[in-house]
Amino acid sequence: FPMGKRSAKPRTTGLTMIIDKGLGLGETRDLLNLAGDYIDFFKLGFGTSALYYNEVLEEKIHLVTSHGVDIYPGGTFLEVAVLQDKLRQYLAMARDFGFTAVEVSDGTIDMSLKLRAEAITTACEMGFKVLSEVGKKDPNNEFEIKEIVQLVNHDLSCGASHVIVEGRESGKAVGLYDKDGNLIMSELEELVYSINDATKLIWEAPIKEQQQELILRFGANVNIGNVNPHEVLALEALRVGLRADTLKAVLQRKNRN
Amino acid sequence: FPMGKRSAKPRTTGLTMIIDKGLGLGETRDLLNLAGDYIDFFKLGFGTSALYYNEVLEEKIHLVTSHGVDIYPGGTFLEVAVLQDKLRQYLAMARDFGFTAVEVSDGTIDMSLKLRAEAITTACEMGFKVLSEVGKKDPNNEFEIKEIVQLVNHDLSCGASHVIVEGRESGKAVGLYDKDGNLIMSELEELVYSINDATKLIWEAPIKEQQQELILRFGANVNIGNVNPHEVLALEALRVGLRADTLKAVLQRKNRN
Amino acid sequence: FPMGKRSAKPRTTGLTMIIDKGLGLGETRDLLNLAGDYIDFFKLGFGTSALYYNEVLEEKIHLVTSHGVDIYPGGTFLEVAVLQDKLRQYLAMARDFGFTAVEVSDGTIDMSLKLRAEAITTACEMGFKVLSEVGKKDPNNEFEIKEIVQLVNHDLSCGASHVIVEGRESGKAVGLYDKDGNLIMSELEELVYSINDATKLIWEAPIKEQQQELILRFGANVNIGNVNPHEVLALEALRVGLRADTLKAVLQRKNRN
Repeated sequence: FPMGKRSAKPRTTGLTMIIDKGLGLGETRDLLNLAGDYIDFFKLGFGTSALYYNEVLEEKIHLVTSHGVDIYPGGTFLEVAVLQDKLRQYLAMARDFGFTAVEVSDGTIDMSLKLRAEAITTACEMGFKVLSEVGKKDPNNEFEIKEIVQLVNHDLSCGASHVIVEGRESGKAVGLYDKDGNLIMSELEELVYSINDATKLIWEAPIKEQQQELILRFGANVNIGNVNPHEVLALEALRVGLRADTLKAVLQRKNRN
Repeated sequence: FPMGKRSAKPRTTGLTMIIDKGLGLGETRDLLNLAGDYIDFFKLGFGTSALYYNEVLEEKIHLVTSHGVDIYPGGTFLEVAVLQDKLRQYLAMARDFGFTAVEVSDGTIDMSLKLRAEAITTACEMGFKVLSEVGKKDPNNEFEIKEIVQLVNHDLSCGASHVIVEGRESGKAVGLYDKDGNLIMSELEELVYSINDATKLIWEAPIKEQQQELILRFGANVNIGNVNPHEVLALEALRVGLRADTLKAVLQRKNRN
Repeated sequence: FPMGKRSAKPRTTGLTMIIDKGLGLGETRDLLNLAGDYIDFFKLGFGTSALYYNEVLEEKIHLVTSHGVDIYPGGTFLEVAVLQDKLRQYLAMARDFGFTAVEVSDGTIDMSLKLRAEAITTACEMGFKVLSEVGKKDPNNEFEIKEIVQLVNHDLSCGASHVIVEGRESGKAVGLYDKDGNLIMSELEELVYSINDATKLIWEAPIKEQQQELILRFGANVNIGNVNPHEVLALEALRVGLRADTLKAVLQRKNRN
């Protein structure tokens, strides 16, 4: 492949996290048979997990994990649990259903650093892979790089395996994206420059142009999240340079050398 | 759930109508097993029902109705039938296929009030649940609130169970939506103010922001139509306050109290 | 149907080509059972074919061809092969997998006319149906009508069955589309005027408004490509005049006569 070698599963870089807004069991099976090797995390978006019939949810989780893919309920759901002071009950229930990971975020509510640390360490102790998330969902909240850097380091030191940079489902007017969904590169560079290990970041990037920019900036093995389930193969093609957009970049680089 | 209780099936409020642009039998089964409880109406969009193989159509209708979901062919199709003066034949054929509802609209053609009344009462007599629709599809047609109010009351008195407010598949530059898909709230309020029972309205709102605004305005049990089949669970999460957007609103309200 | 008769399969006009970004086997089967008669070409987009498990790819190709639908790998893939001077090996491998067509394009790399002619004739000799493509993918490349016309005639004389007019996956800021995805009609007319047989063109038109404009301009049997698999039935409804947009045009025409 023109773009160079992709990391193989189980990976710690080059992760792909998909956002599932409600795939049926048949679709889920279909997707995993087609592209299971290219998916690392399966997120049940927006607390939809609370809306499944129990049997369907259990079967779905079993399907996903049996393909070596981690699965977790959306972060909003954990925020509700924290809000209701039911963190441990929530985590126990998630474990009983078979979830292998959780997301610790404060996209909607405010959470003290202490509560956040507790959520991460508790989830780790209970055997979950923990993804934390930085960046508010509300476009009116400013994205303070210094604060973000602090939070990223805090979460990793508490035991989070990766930190997600909020991009929302839409990828627009939030975090590092302007209202048209373009990456604000100066802020991205400042963030990356200040983090010890940028490979610990997962970038929520639902839009193709965002994925493309991240791949051109960081290479094939950048971690990308909030990917549409129907575009996993297309993203993989973009990663390895089989799509026109990244292929051209590869050619230009080769010509220069 | 933070947002309060949702009505259960069979519902008369809190209805969700999906627009099906061509789901296969497998996808349909998958969707119903996943989210059948959250779907009230299944619309086969744009007269696509005429393009199915008969066996596939019959099996699909059977599948849908056996999950307690009403199903109807798109309104354009009935408009063609009225145009060709074949209303009764059309309704008889629809009934033979197993459709349980019909939509009476004049989105494309002009229909006299008399013809419209006849269509609604005939369909009712033949055992259909009747949804009528107000608002022209053409962006050049102005949306006259007074006319619309008159039409809504007319249709309900003829026997329509609900009246759909046209939003099209795109949700833009039509009816109550401006060219960017934003709800024109002043017109919405004027409409709601003039209608006897606003719970009889089904708002076509294909875009998430529109759904969100309607839920924040009318509550979890507003009737929403033209929902993308793949977003039924996401809409349900929005209704009950499990998504960041509506959760935040709930929290703010609680804080104020 | 109001819009007049559609050509039946196997067709040489009124072709529908879908772009597949990664449908699973179940979805593929579902789609073909639903709408196989309305699909002529199945394109595995962006070289995704290289990312399938071999067994899945073979079964998928078999499924598609057994429904009388041609299938081919994305053009970018062949460009990579040409770049690596492995055209024949690529074609042999494609044939072994069961592909029945190929696309010859230079959307990303530059290819001499000689190399292009060789690719087309070689593929024809090896039994493939050949679609060539005109127009660069890069928005910075100008779309020179004269060059395009020359290329179209060149490719057809080499044995290409049809020539695709590049529209990309997005349908924006490329070829005949401006940055908002609107057809630049003056350029389209100039192109059509200069081509011997415009029915040999397949227009990549992923957006509904583009499909609609092409149908209103050329009639129900215009060739349309890069159609979303989930919108095949919706496009077919648009072709035959069962959707409001084209129905209105038909009515206006009838009224004038």
